[in-house]
Amino acid sequence: MLSDPSTACYDAWCGVAHGCTRKLGMKICGFLQKNNNLEEKISSLKEKPSKDLLDNSDRDSRFRRTETDFSNLYARDLLPAKNGEEPTMQFLLEVVDILTNYVRKTFDRSTKVLDFHHPHQLLEGMEGFNLELSDQPESLEQILVDCRDTLKYGVRTGHPRFFNQLSTGLDIIGLAGEWLTSTANTNMFTYEIAPVFVLMEQLTLRKMREIIGWPNGEGDGIFSPGGAISNMYSVMIARYKFFPEVKAKGMTAAPRLVLFTSEHVSLVLNVWSNSKRHGCVFLQSHYSIKKASAALGFGTENLILLSTDERGRVIPADLEAKVIDAKARGCVPMFVNATAGSTVYGAFDPIHEIADICEKYNMWLHVDGAWGGGLLMSRKHRHKLSGVERANSVTWNPHKMMGVPLQCSAILVRERGVLSGCNSMCAGYLFQPDKQYDVSYDTGDKAIQCGRHVDIFKFWLMWKAKGTVGFEQHIDKCLDLSHYLYTKIKDRQGYQMVFEGEPQHTNVCFWYLPPGIRGMPDGQEKRERLHKVAPRIKAMMMESGTTMVGYQPQGDKVNFFRMVISNPAATRSDIDFLTDEIERLGRDL
Amino acid sequence: MLSDPSTACYDAWCGVAHGCTRKLGMKICGFLQKNNNLEEKISSLKEKPSKDLLDNSDRDSRFRRTETDFSNLYARDLLPAKNGEEPTMQFLLEVVDILTNYVRKTFDRSTKVLDFHHPHQLLEGMEGFNLELSDQPESLEQILVDCRDTLKYGVRTGHPRFFNQLSTGLDIIGLAGEWLTSTANTNMFTYEIAPVFVLMEQLTLRKMREIIGWPNGEGDGIFSPGGAISNMYSVMIARYKFFPEVKAKGMTAAPRLVLFTSEHVSLVLNVWSNSKRHGCVFLQSHYSIKKASAALGFGTENLILLSTDERGRVIPADLEAKVIDAKARGCVPMFVNATAGSTVYGAFDPIHEIADICEKYNMWLHVDGAWGGGLLMSRKHRHKLSGVERANSVTWNPHKMMGVPLQCSAILVRERGVLSGCNSMCAGYLFQPDKQYDVSYDTGDKAIQCGRHVDIFKFWLMWKAKGTVGFEQHIDKCLDLSHYLYTKIKDRQGYQMVFEGEPQHTNVCFWYLPPGIRGMPDGQEKRERLHKVAPRIKAMMMESGTTMVGYQPQGDKVNFFRMVISNPAATRSDIDFLTDEIERLGRDL
Repeated sequence: MLSDPSTACYDAWCGVAHGCTRKLGMKICGFLQKNNNLEEKISSLKEKPSKDLLDNSDRDSRFRRTETDFSNLYARDLLPAKNGEEPTMQFLLEVVDILTNYVRKTFDRSTKVLDFHHPHQLLEGMEGFNLELSDQPESLEQILVDCRDTLKYGVRTGHPRFFNQLSTGLDIIGLAGEWLTSTANTNMFTYEIAPVFVLMEQLTLRKMREIIGWPNGEGDGIFSPGGAISNMYSVMIARYKFFPEVKAKGMTAAPRLVLFTSEHVSLVLNVWSNSKRHGCVFLQSHYSIKKASAALGFGTENLILLSTDERGRVIPADLEAKVIDAKARGCVPMFVNATAGSTVYGAFDPIHEIADICEKYNMWLHVDGAWGGGLLMSRKHRHKLSGVERANSVTWNPHKMMGVPLQCSAILVRERGVLSGCNSMCAGYLFQPDKQYDVSYDTGDKAIQCGRHVDIFKFWLMWKAKGTVGFEQHIDKCLDLSHYLYTKIKDRQGYQMVFEGEPQHTNVCFWYLPPGIRGMPDGQEKRERLHKVAPRIKAMMMESGTTMVGYQPQGDKVNFFRMVISNPAATRSDIDFLTDEIERLGRDL
Repeated sequence: MLSDPSTACYDAWCGVAHGCTRKLGMKICGFLQKNNNLEEKISSLKEKPSKDLLDNSDRDSRFRRTETDFSNLYARDLLPAKNGEEPTMQFLLEVVDILTNYVRKTFDRSTKVLDFHHPHQLLEGMEGFNLELSDQPESLEQILVDCRDTLKYGVRTGHPRFFNQLSTGLDIIGLAGEWLTSTANTNMFTYEIAPVFVLMEQLTLRKMREIIGWPNGEGDGIFSPGGAISNMYSVMIARYKFFPEVKAKGMTAAPRLVLFTSEHVSLVLNVWSNSKRHGCVFLQSHYSIKKASAALGFGTENLILLSTDERGRVIPADLEAKVIDAKARGCVPMFVNATAGSTVYGAFDPIHEIADICEKYNMWLHVDGAWGGGLLMSRKHRHKLSGVERANSVTWNPHKMMGVPLQCSAILVRERGVLSGCNSMCAGYLFQPDKQYDVSYDTGDKAIQCGRHVDIFKFWLMWKAKGTVGFEQHIDKCLDLSHYLYTKIKDRQGYQMVFEGEPQHTNVCFWYLPPGIRGMPDGQEKRERLHKVAPRIKAMMMESGTTMVGYQPQGDKVNFFRMVISNPAATRSDIDFLTDEIERLGRDL
């Protein structure tokens, strides 16, 4: 069936798979050049209905001729170039071949999570992978090679054994949504150029507000480029609500405002004197509120850190005491961030008790549910956010616990009007009032951005495809898995939990003590040795490429592992693999 | 050659094209189910090397059996589900079929730019396109229909006749880059999880700094979610440079700081009393500096607007006068934004003269080249940014003039250290100092964000594929086209230019005067009628779907068209089409 050149390609392809095309001039011949592409044929037939092409046998011979030599093709030969359609389709399909292969391998446990190299190695050019940019164009063949190499030296964040971040997994529907989003390549600021996406955002935000528990899903909100920006919005909106004059007059128009958030602060312990970050304070609570305090002109000193219990939950009495103290010092307590799912411990602050205090002292209550917000989708676990409906604003990142591809973060606001009041500048060149449609759908002026990426579609599509119940199942499964891990290691020899009791979220924090350390008497020497265990095991994991999990110190606690599970591909066998791997790599430390 | 079921599909597909699958239960049978997919076959053979499949004829029969009935498949059947690989591949390829068709049509001038509907029409559900989210999952067949509908009711921003925004076009290499980026689905904050992308960002930022003209490309920078955020960075960095104590102590630790930017401000003219945005001030200069002033706690009143000449360029003497005045009032002039390519007029402020004043009064000079920065790639046009090398920071959005898909914006800083000094919070859970690699590559702490989308890859890939010369050609071509338009209409009957002389960028601003208005004496009545012309023509354009171009009022100038060209697909014939269309639609107004 295959003609001679095809056979040659076939052999080359079989033999060396996806690294075969480094040498320029060699034909790339993935499957897509020779597919029996019915539509392509029909479309060609429509355009050029020449007699012989209408014959079936000729269709096939024509088909074989679609093999593409990308070594003589350049970006300039693609659409909108004249006759660019065929090379464009062939090029895109070749890219898809690379991507679908990557997707396949991502879910294959026999592949590595990563193929680690140091920065200097990649910069020197791994096997000809040249990162430097040049003045002259490269052939499409080289571009395809660059695509393969980029994936080869990257990290498979969707691999069933990738546990390193709060955002893991590769959702196929979400992926399709992102591919479509980038093909549509538009901007959220007006209905005019993103009609469908603007409406999807509006409906999805309403649904999220309903799930939070605000009556009829009323309120406002917007998707932002991430949880830190969403949290920044909440501080800005709170300031606008209480001191609207700051928008025009600046912070000097307000009294000295203070903000509150949970914090586990430690001094940098002197034991890790090899730190390259001398003088850093390690934070547990998400640092975004601190970044917002600095950026928005409050000053980080006016962010007051709240004491937490041993599980990392804010102690409400400490909040009240600090509010009273701040007032006594002449400050105005304005904003409290309650964390729903802290980054390290996965702790949920007691929202009801915090809300009581906020009401008593007239403070804005924000719930940072970037990580924990997803639990609202689970009938079993949403009680952990009990009281969230009393919040004035909520951050909720579908790109974390709900498995939506990056970036997808929402800031939701209970009161209508304050978000747009806070940010609108009425730029006439974007938001003409005399359009033929209802311009209240032009949401751009609510954002601190001008152009805004379409983050909604993948999420909307996933919701359609899974239903609310699908997200619930995913979340329940991840929490079941973390329960499995917790139960497995809590009494296991060589393991020690960082905090007592069942974790609230999927965060399981633990030390692994290699046999040589277990018998040592408690004290500085043991601490120093234990402190080095997690980084060493992690480094070996990365070098062997088998799995990835995070670690960090916390307060006076030396480095421990923080396991988090948000990956829908993970199973108990992967959890078992992780502990086996830790024990294997850590045995002789 | 085709078996019976295939023939049936072929007919259905031919007959009703991409809207045929509304009825649930009907087979979707795009080309990709029946492609002669060599690789799939080989991969199957490798996994299950059964004897009969190794026979050529059986390969083909197996191939035909890959037809997929998506009406019985759900998201839960895709990877990571057991046996999910085949449906995953078929689903993704079906999506690609939809997307490649969309790409093809985007460049086809016989298709519409958009199929306009009002918000209430889309919300009611166009032909069954239901935007509402539900509790239960929908079949993959419905998901594919939703994808088609989303594109059908959207706007083809890559269409050769889409001129509505500064970001237009659909670059095929950039698109491939975005597809890969979303497949890799990782995060820029650490080298650990984005090694290749982090290095690409570093090298590309250096190259951009070299092109700006900073010695050896030294300095710092980061990609941000858009020009407004990049400009916000510049103000934050400037504040940190001059008043580092604000980070900890807030704005009350600084004297009263003032900022300067270009502005064409008008009161809202009473003539358009039908405005839904009463009280708005229409701005020409990009409103991002104003948004930053509000957000960062300076206050919009402390943003001082600079007078411009008739071409929209800042008058340096006005800057100096206002600096002196501000100092006399006890304020501290801190920051000047020079716009390189204003959004409406495309004006370039005289950077050298502004830089002289900044040096004299010790102010930070920021160049907002979000729109005009691309001209640095052109030897013919980069003189318009002469002096940019004297800036302390530069915003440059490759997603505008350089045709990179959204979002891609860089903030570049001449002095090393201030960007990270300004933003770093040293979060231990993200940025462990005891990693095995050089942690100076963990750039996340420089950002105001935590998670950060990978915006670099598409840009890097385009640069590789086009070379610096390719970007230069694109920019020169767009400016040639705008010259063509300007030359064509400047003396043409029925047209009137908004400002005299050749535009500096691709912005061509003009009024179209329908025959019935041309003979009217100048005065309020003529103004009122002319003011309504552009919105009416635009509305008719959108309803007929033939082309899109922006309009707005400016100062005391009534609504005019702002034509901008950044679309690589546009040709002279499209410019001719635009003017013909304006004349056709506006004839009887």
